[in-house]
Amino acid sequence: MAAKVLYDFTAEPGNNELSVREGETLTITNQNIGGGWIEARNSRGEVGLVPEDYVEVSQPQALTAGGSVPPLDLSFFDNHAAASNTQVQTSNGSDPWAVFDTNASGGFSNNWAAQPEGTETGQSGNNAWGSGGHGHPHAYPGPGAEDDEWDEWDEDRKSSGGFGESEVSDGSAITRGGAHGSSMKITLNKFPGFSKSGPELYLLSKQVSKGPKLSVYSGEVGPVWEYTEPQLDCVVADPKKGSKMYGLKSYIEYQVTPNTTNKPVNHRYKHFDWLYERLLEKFGSAIPIPSLPDKQVTGRFEEEFIKMRMERLQAWMSRMCRHPVVSNSEVFQLFLTYKDEKDWKTGKRKAEKDETVGVMIFSTIEPEGLADLELLEVEQKCEQFSRFTKSMDDGVKDLLTVGQEHWKRCTGPLPKEYQRIGKAFQNLSSVFNSSGYEGEATLTDALTAAGKTYEEIAQMVAEQPKKDLHFLMETNNEYKGLLGCFPDTIGVHKAAIEKVKEADKLVATSKITPGEKVTMGKRASTMSYALQAEMNHFHSNRIYDYNRVMQQYLEQQAKFYETIAEKLRHAHSQFTTM
Amino acid sequence: MAAKVLYDFTAEPGNNELSVREGETLTITNQNIGGGWIEARNSRGEVGLVPEDYVEVSQPQALTAGGSVPPLDLSFFDNHAAASNTQVQTSNGSDPWAVFDTNASGGFSNNWAAQPEGTETGQSGNNAWGSGGHGHPHAYPGPGAEDDEWDEWDEDRKSSGGFGESEVSDGSAITRGGAHGSSMKITLNKFPGFSKSGPELYLLSKQVSKGPKLSVYSGEVGPVWEYTEPQLDCVVADPKKGSKMYGLKSYIEYQVTPNTTNKPVNHRYKHFDWLYERLLEKFGSAIPIPSLPDKQVTGRFEEEFIKMRMERLQAWMSRMCRHPVVSNSEVFQLFLTYKDEKDWKTGKRKAEKDETVGVMIFSTIEPEGLADLELLEVEQKCEQFSRFTKSMDDGVKDLLTVGQEHWKRCTGPLPKEYQRIGKAFQNLSSVFNSSGYEGEATLTDALTAAGKTYEEIAQMVAEQPKKDLHFLMETNNEYKGLLGCFPDTIGVHKAAIEKVKEADKLVATSKITPGEKVTMGKRASTMSYALQAEMNHFHSNRIYDYNRVMQQYLEQQAKFYETIAEKLRHAHSQFTTM
Repeated sequence: MAAKVLYDFTAEPGNNELSVREGETLTITNQNIGGGWIEARNSRGEVGLVPEDYVEVSQPQALTAGGSVPPLDLSFFDNHAAASNTQVQTSNGSDPWAVFDTNASGGFSNNWAAQPEGTETGQSGNNAWGSGGHGHPHAYPGPGAEDDEWDEWDEDRKSSGGFGESEVSDGSAITRGGAHGSSMKITLNKFPGFSKSGPELYLLSKQVSKGPKLSVYSGEVGPVWEYTEPQLDCVVADPKKGSKMYGLKSYIEYQVTPNTTNKPVNHRYKHFDWLYERLLEKFGSAIPIPSLPDKQVTGRFEEEFIKMRMERLQAWMSRMCRHPVVSNSEVFQLFLTYKDEKDWKTGKRKAEKDETVGVMIFSTIEPEGLADLELLEVEQKCEQFSRFTKSMDDGVKDLLTVGQEHWKRCTGPLPKEYQRIGKAFQNLSSVFNSSGYEGEATLTDALTAAGKTYEEIAQMVAEQPKKDLHFLMETNNEYKGLLGCFPDTIGVHKAAIEKVKEADKLVATSKITPGEKVTMGKRASTMSYALQAEMNHFHSNRIYDYNRVMQQYLEQQAKFYETIAEKLRHAHSQFTTM
Repeated sequence: MAAKVLYDFTAEPGNNELSVREGETLTITNQNIGGGWIEARNSRGEVGLVPEDYVEVSQPQALTAGGSVPPLDLSFFDNHAAASNTQVQTSNGSDPWAVFDTNASGGFSNNWAAQPEGTETGQSGNNAWGSGGHGHPHAYPGPGAEDDEWDEWDEDRKSSGGFGESEVSDGSAITRGGAHGSSMKITLNKFPGFSKSGPELYLLSKQVSKGPKLSVYSGEVGPVWEYTEPQLDCVVADPKKGSKMYGLKSYIEYQVTPNTTNKPVNHRYKHFDWLYERLLEKFGSAIPIPSLPDKQVTGRFEEEFIKMRMERLQAWMSRMCRHPVVSNSEVFQLFLTYKDEKDWKTGKRKAEKDETVGVMIFSTIEPEGLADLELLEVEQKCEQFSRFTKSMDDGVKDLLTVGQEHWKRCTGPLPKEYQRIGKAFQNLSSVFNSSGYEGEATLTDALTAAGKTYEEIAQMVAEQPKKDLHFLMETNNEYKGLLGCFPDTIGVHKAAIEKVKEADKLVATSKITPGEKVTMGKRASTMSYALQAEMNHFHSNRIYDYNRVMQQYLEQQAKFYETIAEKLRHAHSQFTTM
């Protein structure tokens, strides 16, 4: 089966990978590698692994002329091919830390630079599986029409036209805001702050929210969310391979056990993704919702891939559990504690019909015992958070860059060098052994032992990053993901502030009443309290997380050097004392 | 003053060096840098340090047309310029371990491959300071006509024509063997084994040696030299800058104190070099005499250079002291224990007139209580030593190569990376400090401390090689030097064996008498005992040296890792326990 290369991919040496260039045609030799990889042969006859998202598989039958393939049909032909067709542009296929790189804001830009209003343009809608939006590559379950309720989401998705639709006009978000028939359309509206009229939806809303209130209190450190005890947590474990359609399709199901019920529920990756979409839609304007580990291509083999994904799903779930607003939300509780499929189905439909989404989340927030803030204060807080998150983003990225280089050195040239030192000692030992001179067995044995010690050190050096640097990197990647959400969240606030600044003019031109102006100010203050509570939540988590990860890192590093020293002491003791 | 570049030189970054290419013309901006360096400016106006041996200085006065400059005149004009003019081809100017690279066999090749007889061709004699021979760059005392006895050696040297003379003909070495008028001419004859008739000089010698005998005994490990107690040793210390000619010329004088008399004597580098020449000439056929650290260009500054040279002179002297034959020789004793200048002068002249040199050293060797060896045994022993020294040479070079790479990594990229990790932690700490969130001082302080710890580790890593790898490298470099002498020594033996094999034919054609044939066999046996004694000396020293250096290396390495672990434990303790 032929495949066309969509993006350049540079093979990592020693991993059986194949470097390919955009536009190149490959012959697929094995589609069942797993972990997001396929095996392919290029025109020079070289065979190797290529990320399946980097190629577009040509259809073997029926379609000989090159036209876009309807994904529905495609899924019946070939599960992998369908997955390959999602064409998501991963930022860097050879980068093990690129997982959180693109931060899930769909067609929206993640840039820290101020977003010019009304210039947001999406992809044209020609290809429902086009490169816009959240069409991350599902290495396991491909999209397909299935008869059980669990897959209706896939069909929703297909019929929605995805994020590919053009979104040029200013008011379109609002217009569509009411059309909640499709979950995808709701999602389009998730950051109305980016359209001029976005925050107005809340600032000038006449509607009173009927749902549960989210309280913001005055805590020791300033405004804080309401924290409930005991803190929710859950364990993601026990990945199991399932199959359906008489074994034609397979998927991985994870067991998720919350500490509240201690009763496990099963979820496939796409359910996590569904949850993510709901949380982003509902809370994204107020709370950074980091994206799932979706662009994962590092798992060379299925097992490794599953383990890594599970570890990251666990981290994501734990972070969501720690958030008082998210963890207490109906949709999150549903995900963790649904009783049966019927319960799940009902809850799922209800969540998808939730209208308190986007900026409307602020309508549920109630500052308790907190005086309204002046606009200047609101603005100053917003600026302060913007500066902080920007500089932390820089700091985290800097650490990730140096960590990645260190990782490469520790797993590449450094252990090779220790190995060569070890070999050189052993080589000298065997030369000495050939001397024919009596009584140097102690020296040659000790020299061999020293050589072997350096070979052991080589192996320790190569394996150490998995024991310490890995967690430092994972934590910083999580923070990079979180911090990547702030520009959008802060953007909503900035847009609201701008709106309130225009209030006088709007009153003067009779666009709004003086009473509405007062309401706008109060609501901007509420938004600011929400942002402050969120920042305080972020800070307290940050302090906890960095304390923990640094301790773990330094503990492991100290142990590592202690073990090396012990090994060297032992090697030393084998030489004759003179 | 203009200078022409003789060899390409690549600057090491960060050392103020200047890359130059062969044939380029430079302007010398400072000749008094010291340590074998000059400061020069290239045609692009760039200024930097260049090894003075890499350039030929043009004469400022009198000589405007480019002709070869008589070295005698030159030395009057400018001390440094004269030194620069020696034009010795150092193997690699930027290689800190290249010191022992060329192994002092003058115009002779050091190749392990069998030396084709009679193909030895020297440089043409056009330039008395040409690239052949031992004209190593004296960074301090340049050659010059001086009125005290201490410098007559320089004049000898100048009038001899150096090693530049053509040496093509087969028998020339023998012809010249008698001409002991000039020390340089004697040296030309130092390896008569390389000419066909070489070992005959001893094998068929009628002359009975009158000097002291060198006994070979049967020891536990086989034939051994006679070892006397206490073992001689000496301390090379206290380098002092002296000057003469009213300060126009300066030199460094080292204090050498033997453990026998405990009375210090002073020697300049050139006296060590004189000693080396004498030992090589006298013992070189039987005993590997490693060359002095002469090609030294690593000392960036005078002080560092002097320290390094002294350290290596010490190592060289200690090794010579440990050798029972060398340390008991008259010339070596003279060097260590001369009473006054008159004593030194007399002894020096006597040593230079010594006729028991080259293969004739074997005439002083007396195997005691050892039965004559069959030629086959002689040959087998010779082959065995040849194999061993060859494979040890490979092993040592392998270790030196990897050690050098490790040195580079430890002093270059690795500490830079630790420093960057340290900076990244500190950077994150200062970002955290700007959060405005209360009560994270413990975290930020600990994070700063962790960052500083990694900066300290960076420095430790960069400095560690000087504490351990340095000695491992020095020892292996010494052995590389020693091993580089064996092909010549073994070559003498092989030539003798070939000669003995021809004995029957020589008897048949009445070239020698049957009695002479018997003598040849006996003498080959004596040579073999000498070689065996020398190999056993080599082995016992090797075992001692490698035991010692490996212990030192591993001890320092263990300490290094222990210190790092301690630092990390301390950094760890500063985080909050949770």
